[in-house]
This record gives sequence, structure tokens and C-alpha cells, in this order.
Amino acid sequence: MNSVTIRLQPALACAWRRQTTRNSRRIRALQLPCYGASSTDLLPPVQTNLRHYCSGMEQEKGLLFRQLFESVSSTYSYLLADLETKDAVLIDPVLETVDRDIKLIDELGLSLKVAVNTHCHADHITGTGLLKKRLIGVKSAISKHSGATADILLTDGDSIIFGKHCLNVRETPGHTDGCMTLVTGDQSMAFTGDAVLIRGCGRTDFQQGCSKRLYESVHEKIFTLPGHCLIYPAHDYKGQTVSTVDEERKYNPRLTKSLEEFVDIMKNLNLSKPAKIDIAVPANLVCGLHDV
Amino acid sequence: MNSVTIRLQPALACAWRRQTTRNSRRIRALQLPCYGASSTDLLPPVQTNLRHYCSGMEQEKGLLFRQLFESVSSTYSYLLADLETKDAVLIDPVLETVDRDIKLIDELGLSLKVAVNTHCHADHITGTGLLKKRLIGVKSAISKHSGATADILLTDGDSIIFGKHCLNVRETPGHTDGCMTLVTGDQSMAFTGDAVLIRGCGRTDFQQGCSKRLYESVHEKIFTLPGHCLIYPAHDYKGQTVSTVDEERKYNPRLTKSLEEFVDIMKNLNLSKPAKIDIAVPANLVCGLHDV
Repeated sequence: MNSVTIRLQPALACAWRRQTTRNSRRIRALQLPCYGASSTDLLPPVQTNLRHYCSGMEQEKGLLFRQLFESVSSTYSYLLADLETKDAVLIDPVLETVDRDIKLIDELGLSLKVAVNTHCHADHITGTGLLKKRLIGVKSAISKHSGATADILLTDGDSIIFGKHCLNVRETPGHTDGCMTLVTGDQSMAFTGDAVLIRGCGRTDFQQGCSKRLYESVHEKIFTLPGHCLIYPAHDYKGQTVSTVDEERKYNPRLTKSLEEFVDIMKNLNLSKPAKIDIAVPANLVCGLHDV
Repeated sequence: MNSVTIRLQPALACAWRRQTTRNSRRIRALQLPCYGASSTDLLPPVQTNLRHYCSGMEQEKGLLFRQLFESVSSTYSYLLADLETKDAVLIDPVLETVDRDIKLIDELGLSLKVAVNTHCHADHITGTGLLKKRLIGVKSAISKHSGATADILLTDGDSIIFGKHCLNVRETPGHTDGCMTLVTGDQSMAFTGDAVLIRGCGRTDFQQGCSKRLYESVHEKIFTLPGHCLIYPAHDYKGQTVSTVDEERKYNPRLTKSLEEFVDIMKNLNLSKPAKIDIAVPANLVCGLHDV
């Protein structure tokens, strides 16, 4: 790795890796955008011979993984842990399901080190602050571009390390300024937040949303991942649990369009304002709790 | 395997394996029940070093797996497919999500061979009949003890074979007479229907329900599977997606009790009648559609 690893909290097995500007540029240069796909009508079915459900989940890799759902906001949280050290990371926890999540963490004998949000959510209040109150040693993390306070402010190229595993940060703004996608070290799983949803994407009509920026983020930072990389979004409203880069590249009804068509689609969604936005955003700027 | 494999539909890669009465008895004799666990209070956390999320899902094994959710009845359907032959099986499809499921099957380039119900559901109408209408070559399957009509009537020891993979039938009555658990050939995944739910179990107060029978089914046929075997239930109401045999053996609040305590708990649940039972059960006795 051409990066400098800074272990800020070695005892907590939590660190982040900051790449030099030169290295970051080099990596970006390798991630060629693939604009221009416009229609899926004539495409053959996705080649499934290179796709699988849970690559990287095998026993030998020693990674525990749980997908969890909060039904009111249709939010997915993701628990990942190193089976050897028991160090765990929880992605996008929800305030209302903190009890459930803590019980599971306890039963599995895990030690939660980091509670990380893919962005400052508008549709639910994060569980990060309450988790910090209830579990000793938990650090909150979010993008530094989110404008929110947290123990760890992440930027592109950083890593959240738990045991021998890590989640690498790819900044994917567009839904909000501070959106990021977290990618496992072996690039077998990507937690895309609201950037890419299964056959959809996050809206861009509030919270610094910008359709052009979202389109570029997805094509430069997510669609350049391996085709078999599993996509785990922050939400799904149709009962779907997972997709792959390959599938979204071919079948995402918005992101397979040209940039111009995409911007036009996003401009005309005419969605109503999220019910909780006026409560959720201010709360999420301070980990969900005003006194943490 | 000491069993006779009868390939009834070789072209469809669908067959079932019927074990001789003697072999079935011998297998049962090896599955020692483990009654008597009564409290989880003093148990250490589950040993996670032997647990993993998706064993058997690796690319080398060539199995595709998708968990799908129907939110009104909180039902999980499961799509499994051989990545080489593209033969697929759909477990517990729901009528309202047939369009979604067919779209996914189509996009993934799969060929659905069998739509199987773990039992005759009381809370939703199965999608099996509509799938048979919409996709050529699909066979419906259910336990012969369910009283329902279907193309394939399964009993203990039978197997549903798709490509080089299979689902083995374990009869687990108690919620209904015709409940069964489907176990992958490598015993890494068990689709338990309503027999074992995550930290719960199916009710036993209608449709030939019998608490004692359910308890014995679970302890003899499910809790005897390897501890790391993943449990995928037919429902979850708390946003949980998966558990393991090890976890349920230790933390299931009902099934860790003695038989007597379990029967008492089930007798006093005082649940209301499922909203759809009068429509769902008659429909599900004929694959969800009266004219299929």
C-alpha cells in the first residue's frame, strides 16, 4: 500500500489511513469513468458466472456480517466484525433499533469500536450518539464534508480498520456533500449509503444535493469497482437486500442513462419532503443526540 | 449417500431423493435431541470463531443466493441458483411480489425450476401459482402432509436438486402438519419456515398446530445441524435477516426452555387471528390460484 497508516487508537483497533495527495491522484487516474451507457433494453442477462452472494464471507477470512433493517425509514444497518479480535463496526445505525443492535452485539460477544454514518441522514435519526452513551469505547465516524461533529472525520482514502479487516472510504457526494461509500479491503462489498440504491439512487433536491455530482461519484467511485462487488445500500423500499456493481451498471434505470438524461430524471422526481428532515438533520449533525 | 436418487425431470434438473425407511430411521437415530437447556442468563457469548455469514456462498461453490422481503406480511423469500446451469429455486414466494421476483430472475439470467413452500401459509398468499402461469417449466412443491396440491409433494429425506446443488427436506411439523425445513447439501444454510424464527418460533394455535410436536421437530431436526449453519426463517418482524443454529440454541427465548415450559409459553401467547387466514389458507392449498 502506498499509503501512510496512522493508528490513532491502536488499543481500539481503530485507525485511518491517509493517502498522500499524489497517491490519491494516481488512484483517481486509474478509476476511469464509464459514462454513456444509455439503455438496458438490448443487454443480455448479467453474466452470473462471476457473481456470488457473499464473497469474502468465508470462514477463512474470519469476517462476520449482519444486515439489519429498520422498517419505518426502510434503513439498512450493517454489522461487520473480525471473528478473531471481535472488533466490530456498525454502519448507519438507527436510533429506534439501538436496543436490538446492542443485544445482538452482546450475544455475539463483539466489541463495537466504530459507529459510522455513510452521510448525514434526512429520513431517520442516527443511533450513533446513543450507542456511544451505552457502550464504552465506541467512536463515531462520518465524512468531514458532512458538517457533522464526530470522533473521527473521514476523507477519501481513509480506512476504518477492525481486526485484520478494513473499510476503505470513497467519497461519493451528490445526494449530500458528505456522502461516502465504504468498501471492504478485498472490494467484495460496498456500502453505498444513498449514492447507489438497488435499481435506484438517492434524491438530490435538498441538503446540497447535486445530480451531476452524484452521477460522477457513482461512475468514478462505485461503478469502477469489480463487477461482482456486492452493493449494500442504506435503504430499500421493495424488499431487496443486495445487488452487485455489475447489475447496477446494467439495470439501474437512472444511472445507466447519459449524464444529461440523469439530471433531467432527477429534476422531475417531484418527491415530497422527507417527514423527519427538520428533526433528523439537526440531530444527525451531532450524532443523533444533542448532548454527546 | 445411502439414498436412492430418482431423477423425475432430468431436463429440468429437478429431482427428489427418497430415502428408504431404514435409512431414514438410521439418520434420525444419529440426530440426538438436545432437550433441557433452560436459561441463557449465564451463558457466555456465542463462540463466533466458527460462525460466518454466508458459508458455501463462495464463488468456487457457484451458488447464487438472494434474500427478498415482503413487508406487509414480513415474509422472506429466498432465491437460490446454480451459477453454472442457471437452474433456480424460489422458496416461499409471495403473490404480491411475483413481478419483482420474475424481473430479478430475468435480469440474472436464471431459469426457475421449482417454487417451493415451507408450509401452507396462513398470513399471505403464495406466489407459486402465478409463477407457474408466468414462467414456463416451473414446478410447485410443498410437503405432502400439508394437504395442498402441488406438482411435487415432498417428504422427509427428499431433495430438490438444482444444478450441482440441492435442498434436503427435513420434516419439522408443529406450526402446521406440513412444515418442513430445507437444508443445503453442505448444511451451511437452513430455511426453517415458521418452525424456528430468529429468537422466536411459529405459533401453534391453529392449522393443526402442536407445541410439543414443534419443540421436538426443532430439537431433533434443526438444532442438530452444525452450530454455524445459518438459519433463514420465513418471517422476521424486527429487521433481523439471519441467525445461526448456535445462536438459537443459546438465545432463543422459547426453544431454550424445557418442553413443559415451552408448551406453557405457547399456550399463553393470546395472539389475534391472522388477518388473512380465511383467504390465505384455502388459496394456498391450491398454489395460491384456484385455477392452476
